[in-house]
Amino acid sequence: MTREVVKLAQKFNNFYLNGFQKGDIRPFLVDGQQVGLIKSEVLKHLKRFPEVFCIRKCEYSNQGIVELNPAFRDYGERTEKLDKVLRQLKSENIFTALSGWRDEYYEVKSAQSVGLLKMDRSATCLFGVRKYGVDINGYVKHPTQGLCIWLQQRSNTKETWPGKWDNMVGGGLSVGFGIIETAIKEAAEEASIPNHLIKNLVSAGCVSFFFESDRGLFPNTEYVFDLELPIDFVPHNSDGEVQAFELLPAKECLERVFSPEFKTTSCPVVIDFMIRHGFLTSENQLNFTQIVELLHVPLQSLYTYNRSLENNANNFDNKIENGHSI
Amino acid sequence: MTREVVKLAQKFNNFYLNGFQKGDIRPFLVDGQQVGLIKSEVLKHLKRFPEVFCIRKCEYSNQGIVELNPAFRDYGERTEKLDKVLRQLKSENIFTALSGWRDEYYEVKSAQSVGLLKMDRSATCLFGVRKYGVDINGYVKHPTQGLCIWLQQRSNTKETWPGKWDNMVGGGLSVGFGIIETAIKEAAEEASIPNHLIKNLVSAGCVSFFFESDRGLFPNTEYVFDLELPIDFVPHNSDGEVQAFELLPAKECLERVFSPEFKTTSCPVVIDFMIRHGFLTSENQLNFTQIVELLHVPLQSLYTYNRSLENNANNFDNKIENGHSI
Repeated sequence: MTREVVKLAQKFNNFYLNGFQKGDIRPFLVDGQQVGLIKSEVLKHLKRFPEVFCIRKCEYSNQGIVELNPAFRDYGERTEKLDKVLRQLKSENIFTALSGWRDEYYEVKSAQSVGLLKMDRSATCLFGVRKYGVDINGYVKHPTQGLCIWLQQRSNTKETWPGKWDNMVGGGLSVGFGIIETAIKEAAEEASIPNHLIKNLVSAGCVSFFFESDRGLFPNTEYVFDLELPIDFVPHNSDGEVQAFELLPAKECLERVFSPEFKTTSCPVVIDFMIRHGFLTSENQLNFTQIVELLHVPLQSLYTYNRSLENNANNFDNKIENGHSI
Repeated sequence: MTREVVKLAQKFNNFYLNGFQKGDIRPFLVDGQQVGLIKSEVLKHLKRFPEVFCIRKCEYSNQGIVELNPAFRDYGERTEKLDKVLRQLKSENIFTALSGWRDEYYEVKSAQSVGLLKMDRSATCLFGVRKYGVDINGYVKHPTQGLCIWLQQRSNTKETWPGKWDNMVGGGLSVGFGIIETAIKEAAEEASIPNHLIKNLVSAGCVSFFFESDRGLFPNTEYVFDLELPIDFVPHNSDGEVQAFELLPAKECLERVFSPEFKTTSCPVVIDFMIRHGFLTSENQLNFTQIVELLHVPLQSLYTYNRSLENNANNFDNKIENGHSI
């Protein structure tokens, strides 16, 4: 029985567990609805753009809120005005996050899945916007070594987590691509999984966690898929984003996950896989139920502010209620 | 795409989503630590026993708290004093819950897993004590019907949920029995699973939810196990607690789960199974991430009150912090 897994789960939830009490977090509203969380070190730079960001007090949130100018008429205008600010901040080298500018848009949606605006993927962590991705656990039932898991080593030239070990296949959802569509596309690009194998892909749920790094905030939900592979299949990369693949027995894979060589925000997917497949259990893990909780933190309850609340009672119960009603 | 699953997930979390805001819930402390939640309709009867329950105001909780008399010296004395009250209340027919007296103890533990006292299983819902159980998903990969799931119909003579459909095997953890041990024991008693099949049992995680019925509060965590069964195996009951078993294709099983003939508090286990096995997916379920959240609600964060907090700051951040640190 070890505490290593629960410690890791606390690490990739460092913001969920410790970030709020610092008291410098403000809801970020677009079109009257909360879509993000903004730290004061980001806020101080946004203050330079009062025509884009309305920073104001409100009854409901002690810290006040940040609102994208509600006078912007639509998706297009919001996107354009925000993009201009982000390019300005990027040119001034103010945020590490923006140095990884991707020229790839991420769509910010309302709770009802209505697109509100899009912004460069590199900027979402500055606004604490919820991100969604897909991950494929590629595994082999080895006749002598038991459950084995394919990992990829990220290319040294990747902007984020260069050279780190990662799940066999993973990628963020981008504008215009569906969840399963993204999984299949990434499986082909990253690991050259052929059609006759990808048809065995099994949807297996999702994990949610809230990590903070010096780049910003990462409230992530990953849709997870399992793919059992034949023992003689070896993935190879097609898009230059992966420098190696390695097949590891579950025990060695877990050791890799604990090492600093593993991308922190990919750990939840591996741990969830090992729980679902009976490798991490209530028998061998102290705090097993806590680990499972920390793979599914209630992110929705952290994004419940909306303008209509400002006239209503200010209490935590409302937050819970709003977090989960539809 | 339907909303039926998310509606069901809201139903078995009716207390988590709607119970708190009623504002009549008090933390229940034993030995300085919160182990339960007490509704005012229970509290009014506990007031008759001031030598057992200290009901007092405190800074941290608006509603005040209920504490088992801290003068009770140890496990034995706490158990004895509480048992006497419960038997008195039972004899007066005050609570429906106690009419199902089981003569089977449930051990109430601290967050550090130290046993604090034991009480009859029927009484835990009056005190909102967290309950733990095991469930086995018995399934068959049928050559023509695809994924099929074994369900049991509970005996008409069972005290709780008589005659309702339920998971193939399930049971509460009792004093002195381990998790896997309970699963194997229940598999033999309820479904006569032979040794050569039970050895294929796979631990697959846990689900947590918070249900309320007219009996009381049910903050439940179920350790879930999967057991693939050969197509020609038919479970049969050994202990008189089951009146029928039926093998259903996944689609029909889901319809059964939606019907009023299914035990509400067993639904999360089936839904979790169907998510992990690719039957319920982000493609066919609206609010998929919300469903997964509602299968893993952060119960731990609702049991964070302890006496040492009374001298500290009163804020929600502390509750979150304490809920997840170890």
